[in-house]
Amino acid sequence: MRNDESFQIQFQPIGKRVTASSGVSLFEAARESGIDLASACGGEGNCGQCRIVLLSGEATPPNFDEEFILSELELKQGERLACCTYPLSDVTVQIPRESLITGQRLQIASDLQEIEPEPMIRAYAVELISPTLEDIRPDFTRMADELAKTYGLHDVYATTSVLRTISTILRANDWRVTVFVHDREIVGLAAPEKRPLGFAVDLGTTKIAAYLVDLETGADLAAAGAPNPQIGYGEDVISRLNHVYRNSEGGRVMAAKVQETLNDLLNELTTQAGATPEQVVDACIVGNTAMTHLLLQLPVSQLAKAPYVAAVGTAVDVPAAELNLTMAAGAHVYVPPCIGGFVGADHVAMILASDLDQHDKIVLGVDIGTNTEIAICKPGAAFLTSASCASGPAFEGAHISDGMRAASGAIEKVRITPAGVELTTIDDVPAVGLCGSGIVDVMAELYKSGLINQRGRFDKENRRVGNGRFGSEFLLVPASHSGSSRDVTITQKDVNEIQLAKGAIHAGLQILLESTDTTPEEVDEVIIAGAFGSFLNVKSAIAMGLFPELPNAQYKQVGNAAVIGAKWMLISRQARQRAEQIAHNTVYNELTVYPQFSRKFALGMLFPDSVNSEQ
Amino acid sequence: MRNDESFQIQFQPIGKRVTASSGVSLFEAARESGIDLASACGGEGNCGQCRIVLLSGEATPPNFDEEFILSELELKQGERLACCTYPLSDVTVQIPRESLITGQRLQIASDLQEIEPEPMIRAYAVELISPTLEDIRPDFTRMADELAKTYGLHDVYATTSVLRTISTILRANDWRVTVFVHDREIVGLAAPEKRPLGFAVDLGTTKIAAYLVDLETGADLAAAGAPNPQIGYGEDVISRLNHVYRNSEGGRVMAAKVQETLNDLLNELTTQAGATPEQVVDACIVGNTAMTHLLLQLPVSQLAKAPYVAAVGTAVDVPAAELNLTMAAGAHVYVPPCIGGFVGADHVAMILASDLDQHDKIVLGVDIGTNTEIAICKPGAAFLTSASCASGPAFEGAHISDGMRAASGAIEKVRITPAGVELTTIDDVPAVGLCGSGIVDVMAELYKSGLINQRGRFDKENRRVGNGRFGSEFLLVPASHSGSSRDVTITQKDVNEIQLAKGAIHAGLQILLESTDTTPEEVDEVIIAGAFGSFLNVKSAIAMGLFPELPNAQYKQVGNAAVIGAKWMLISRQARQRAEQIAHNTVYNELTVYPQFSRKFALGMLFPDSVNSEQ
Repeated sequence: MRNDESFQIQFQPIGKRVTASSGVSLFEAARESGIDLASACGGEGNCGQCRIVLLSGEATPPNFDEEFILSELELKQGERLACCTYPLSDVTVQIPRESLITGQRLQIASDLQEIEPEPMIRAYAVELISPTLEDIRPDFTRMADELAKTYGLHDVYATTSVLRTISTILRANDWRVTVFVHDREIVGLAAPEKRPLGFAVDLGTTKIAAYLVDLETGADLAAAGAPNPQIGYGEDVISRLNHVYRNSEGGRVMAAKVQETLNDLLNELTTQAGATPEQVVDACIVGNTAMTHLLLQLPVSQLAKAPYVAAVGTAVDVPAAELNLTMAAGAHVYVPPCIGGFVGADHVAMILASDLDQHDKIVLGVDIGTNTEIAICKPGAAFLTSASCASGPAFEGAHISDGMRAASGAIEKVRITPAGVELTTIDDVPAVGLCGSGIVDVMAELYKSGLINQRGRFDKENRRVGNGRFGSEFLLVPASHSGSSRDVTITQKDVNEIQLAKGAIHAGLQILLESTDTTPEEVDEVIIAGAFGSFLNVKSAIAMGLFPELPNAQYKQVGNAAVIGAKWMLISRQARQRAEQIAHNTVYNELTVYPQFSRKFALGMLFPDSVNSEQ
Repeated sequence: MRNDESFQIQFQPIGKRVTASSGVSLFEAARESGIDLASACGGEGNCGQCRIVLLSGEATPPNFDEEFILSELELKQGERLACCTYPLSDVTVQIPRESLITGQRLQIASDLQEIEPEPMIRAYAVELISPTLEDIRPDFTRMADELAKTYGLHDVYATTSVLRTISTILRANDWRVTVFVHDREIVGLAAPEKRPLGFAVDLGTTKIAAYLVDLETGADLAAAGAPNPQIGYGEDVISRLNHVYRNSEGGRVMAAKVQETLNDLLNELTTQAGATPEQVVDACIVGNTAMTHLLLQLPVSQLAKAPYVAAVGTAVDVPAAELNLTMAAGAHVYVPPCIGGFVGADHVAMILASDLDQHDKIVLGVDIGTNTEIAICKPGAAFLTSASCASGPAFEGAHISDGMRAASGAIEKVRITPAGVELTTIDDVPAVGLCGSGIVDVMAELYKSGLINQRGRFDKENRRVGNGRFGSEFLLVPASHSGSSRDVTITQKDVNEIQLAKGAIHAGLQILLESTDTTPEEVDEVIIAGAFGSFLNVKSAIAMGLFPELPNAQYKQVGNAAVIGAKWMLISRQARQRAEQIAHNTVYNELTVYPQFSRKFALGMLFPDSVNSEQ
């Protein structure tokens, strides 16, 4: 590759132009210019998600990976994988909607109950007499004396980042200010009558959801979401950890990317609420163990290989300034404890917000994602128990030929009738692919219609089953009606991918029940958390056998419980104590060391016996 | 001034070459190339200390300041003030010994007693079992569990800077390490059998003195000193505060300069002691209020103007990482409380190390410098009381025509006999100027010999009194015998400068006695601290009337008590508590608001009645 030339690259339909050297792939060029292309493999040529169309100009010829992943027709039409393509002249590149990360649907709401605020941070109105030659008390002492005198608040202290601001803020506000105090620590000063606010964040591998809350009343003031900007380094956790392992600056850069997005969210939230950054005096950030380790720049190499241990599992309280967050000078960020290398603070937050630690019946909690975390609450038992299933990213649309995340044009609901296919897309635009809830619907419908059998094989005799590059397939939307001018299909390979994912979850739940001596009949409730879980058609999930048969269970979809848990920990001291107890009392089950794991996994891949007869 | 050309500047005798633009003075060029020229005014053309000789090349002509300060002969010989001179071609510059800051005598020793160590930081030997799939406890939890099990040390915690290091250090040392713990906080990990060390620093306006100590035994392992690198921004405190006021980056740059020198000292000390930076787990830094504010980057604008209040007067505990110090990952830096804007943590440390808070007799403590801090201990009285006298830098050699700091060639002892002048210089080399102890000797000798009268006027009738540019003068060393090829003299102006300095100290002590209802006869002891104080000839000081007449007082010179106090606070929890009590119980006397200040000041300028008769 010649590295000595640079070319202009124009991205359509965005219209963005960048100059890149000939040694930089179109994927990297897009990333550097702020366009995040979809990628599950982090630009390794494996996942086929970063498809682009070369509209004009010359580039390196398709490589082996592209020839394997793209069809002859696609290649002929100029389709390429951005990560495999290097410019040889100025080029114009079309980015199809499904390759773009931005604009996906972000779920930040939830229908969980609220808790009573028990704030850790209080605001105190303070008015001081200015210094004279007869009263030369230092500025900090003057303020501390007043807090002691008026509020009985003795022995306050502050970190240097706050101490540096006091003299200026006192004088700028003519010695009348609001002082925010966390226990006895002064975390910030602001103009009179400003309220103390908090920042609750669920830092997901794919999405970041955030709330701005009033710390004293617990009221939600604003909500916002954004894609996790680390997606450009790989959609799954392991790709990102490998990126850190391979690049000495990788950890710093990925942390900085997330910090930047958190600051964007802070800015959006404070603007929405008409507040100032100085008012944001506390934060609680939850996420899986890899996400929180990357945020805090904790070492991750031991997290990426067996036995997959976290560097730190206990709660971490870190100055917001250390994470470069635009908040009050002395604001803290609380990252709750995790349960294991694969069961993070987000799961603790979900257990907390679902009250799984306080139920008086047997409840399963399931948070489906790339890793699916499951927990069981059994009253009378001394602990919660919890496991992580390597369900893979199939339910997020990855590794599925026409899979995509829940963005505009994604098929989210499907019904297969003898007459044809009925479907609903996000934003009601022509379909470009399938998101998780659509995939689950398709699986259930194919099985109920007898198009696939219990083992997940297509019935090749059925005239509705076609034959494509990956063997048998079912046509959902013909190219003529799709938004991408390509057929939208489900292939035999896709069905197998979903079976692997559901096999992992099914087996995990089975093992969790067995290891806690629980019969399926005893389960009273299943709480389904997470964005995918809240758009899921539960009937389809049962029909395709995502869960073991739980004849007496009520299913409850609670949405993003993790961010609600984060909010609770922000406004309630007791919620933090509960979270620490949850982490302490939860036993992590490593499923792969369970003796019957492989057999249960294989059985879990099957479609359920009962479904056809139930219809 | 043309700013568009750059020239090569060669400094002799060092031989250093730098390239500088024509808009940069030779003073700044020297500073940028790491050569610190003496300067009391910070390069404002006022003090006349940054003399250089232009050996070759062209430069801007002498300006008004230079024509005032330098004699015609000096100008003719190529002498210039570096801060007023801008190059107009490549130039070669000679730096006379007395203009160089480096190489001055630094006093770091003291003869104060030692205290019993009561260490805050303990080292624990820890050996762990490595993780397996059956035991996936996070690294931090694994270590914490072991500390609890083996040592009964529960609920340890650590900051993120330490958490980031644990996984790597544990694996690098095969799970056998030393853990340094401050109360319950883990401040660092090191290889097995490493001892915990501490860094004690007296951050003086002119000099920095430092010790490396064993925190458990209290043993001194190494000592070192360095000039304060902020000298290039002005020798006195106010010049430096003004520099911060005038330059938005000034505070950051000056803090960075000192931090760099502290790191050099740390490196020198650990090398001397055969230790590693990871072992240095605690520090105590004392200094006057301006020095500690500049170190911590606290705001200083309110410190530079009336009523001269500190931003922070209480003790500050700051992570060493925040000050960029190369110490253990979680090391703390303790900066003790101060008493007022002009009475800093160094004075608290001096009171502590002199046991002034625990004496059973009446003791005065005096620490002579640019500001002279004085304290009185009166048993039975509820508090110590303390004041700051603006004695000026005369005793450090500034504002004295042939004054210099205590560096090689400085006259430190003088005797005037009818036969002539007997003197001793530092390093026994030809004299280039007078340092503080020499100045005090000269004053006493001139007065005792009747060459000056009680009001400090030269006896013009005496044949030994000459006549120079600044009126009457006394020749100490003729040019033919001096190290600078210039006469070394004491002028009428010099005598007046010293009278101002001694007037301030004398008045301060008088007021301190009066305001505590103490008669001169009641004073049992005078403790003289500080570098100047320890080289001082006490008899000369009494003869020139530096102190009021204290007929029953014993004088004790204790050397650098401030750094000893810093060391005590490092090895003893009780010493820190005493320091906080000292700061709390010490009443700061603002001398200038005392009604009789001016009169006492004027009287203090006189030479004592009793001297001639005593001889």
